[in-house]
Amino acid sequence: MQCSSYNKYVIIVAGGSGRRMSASVEKQFLPLGESVVLIETLKMVSSSVPDAKIVLVLPIGRADYWRSLCDKYNCRIAHSLVEGGSERFFSVKAAIDSIECIGEKALVAIHDGVRPFADKQIFDECFEKAAECGAAVSCCDCTDSVRYQNKSIDRSEVKLVQTPQCFELSLLQKAYAQTYNPTFTDDASVVESLGTEIALVEGKRENIKLTKPFDFVIAESLINGKLN
Amino acid sequence: MQCSSYNKYVIIVAGGSGRRMSASVEKQFLPLGESVVLIETLKMVSSSVPDAKIVLVLPIGRADYWRSLCDKYNCRIAHSLVEGGSERFFSVKAAIDSIECIGEKALVAIHDGVRPFADKQIFDECFEKAAECGAAVSCCDCTDSVRYQNKSIDRSEVKLVQTPQCFELSLLQKAYAQTYNPTFTDDASVVESLGTEIALVEGKRENIKLTKPFDFVIAESLINGKLN
Repeated sequence: MQCSSYNKYVIIVAGGSGRRMSASVEKQFLPLGESVVLIETLKMVSSSVPDAKIVLVLPIGRADYWRSLCDKYNCRIAHSLVEGGSERFFSVKAAIDSIECIGEKALVAIHDGVRPFADKQIFDECFEKAAECGAAVSCCDCTDSVRYQNKSIDRSEVKLVQTPQCFELSLLQKAYAQTYNPTFTDDASVVESLGTEIALVEGKRENIKLTKPFDFVIAESLINGKLN
Repeated sequence: MQCSSYNKYVIIVAGGSGRRMSASVEKQFLPLGESVVLIETLKMVSSSVPDAKIVLVLPIGRADYWRSLCDKYNCRIAHSLVEGGSERFFSVKAAIDSIECIGEKALVAIHDGVRPFADKQIFDECFEKAAECGAAVSCCDCTDSVRYQNKSIDRSEVKLVQTPQCFELSLLQKAYAQTYNPTFTDDASVVESLGTEIALVEGKRENIKLTKPFDFVIAESLINGKLN
């Protein structure tokens, strides 16, 4: 089935409390470029997939703060808000449950709120592959040698997984109806636990996840490269 | 045994032809900061481990070009030159063979020529751990989800391996006396194939390997941060 036959959703997951940065504000609300990380991500998603409905998952109690940021930075992109849970699994599940989809064929891309550097090509390829296979995730080769359980493993067989991760809505609903399991580290692992094959789409290293101060150094140089 | 009881060597491996960058010059000779990558790496190694003898592995036929770069950028750091081989294994082996070591207790750090952002702390910790355990490599946690042979694996058990990788000289000589095997992706994997346990030392993500254009974007912002 062709990608264009589906309705499209993008769930932006920003329910985390950003403990890794040990900052007073969650990392998705830290300054980036001319606004903050999450607004930059929302703008990128909206321009990459203009025909998608956007669902944004925020930490509990942060909706008013988010609206104040949107006002401050004059961000008028349509999106619905969902309150996150204690784990990413519950945040994504809440977003899926918010999608009204009676009899609807839909594809859902799930994207990290702290990855503002994905782009149209990455989203297009993920949606197309998910239309074909049901489940597709964006990932990159690993340029470092890799050790797993303190043994060397063949890095050519290793993929570093990013987002977006795209799925048929019905498959995603079935996957997230499962009981939570701590081995669910990303959406692909939840869907995979149904026995579903996951297709891989070549991502871009520039699509970094902003979690540590070093990532923000990289992000600023990427933003400057874009603005110049 | 204490680290200070050993003589120290650092082998800087820059024997590669830089095919990944598809540039006309090898990536270790590309501009960085105020000189080129390999000179920046050599300066960093010399200031991080001032008591070490430095052995530099260059691509075949590049010694004169290298000397011209050292003249141009007024780099007077003492080091010996070795000609590289067709694979990293043979480059490192040639450097080990060049070390004169009759009856000498020595530790050898092997470091990528395209990693100019290691530092004194990383080298000190690697040398100390290698004095204690025989073999120690610098590595980082992985912030992305990881797939291996297209299955999710637990990323908390995954380490991304960098350099320096430090070893007792006698152990390294024994390891590199083995027949070459394509599964030897780094020095740790060569030593490990003897059945030796490899100790892990916490590295820094800033210690990037410059292989692709994106890495040079990051490198320039790191250099600018250092110079300001």
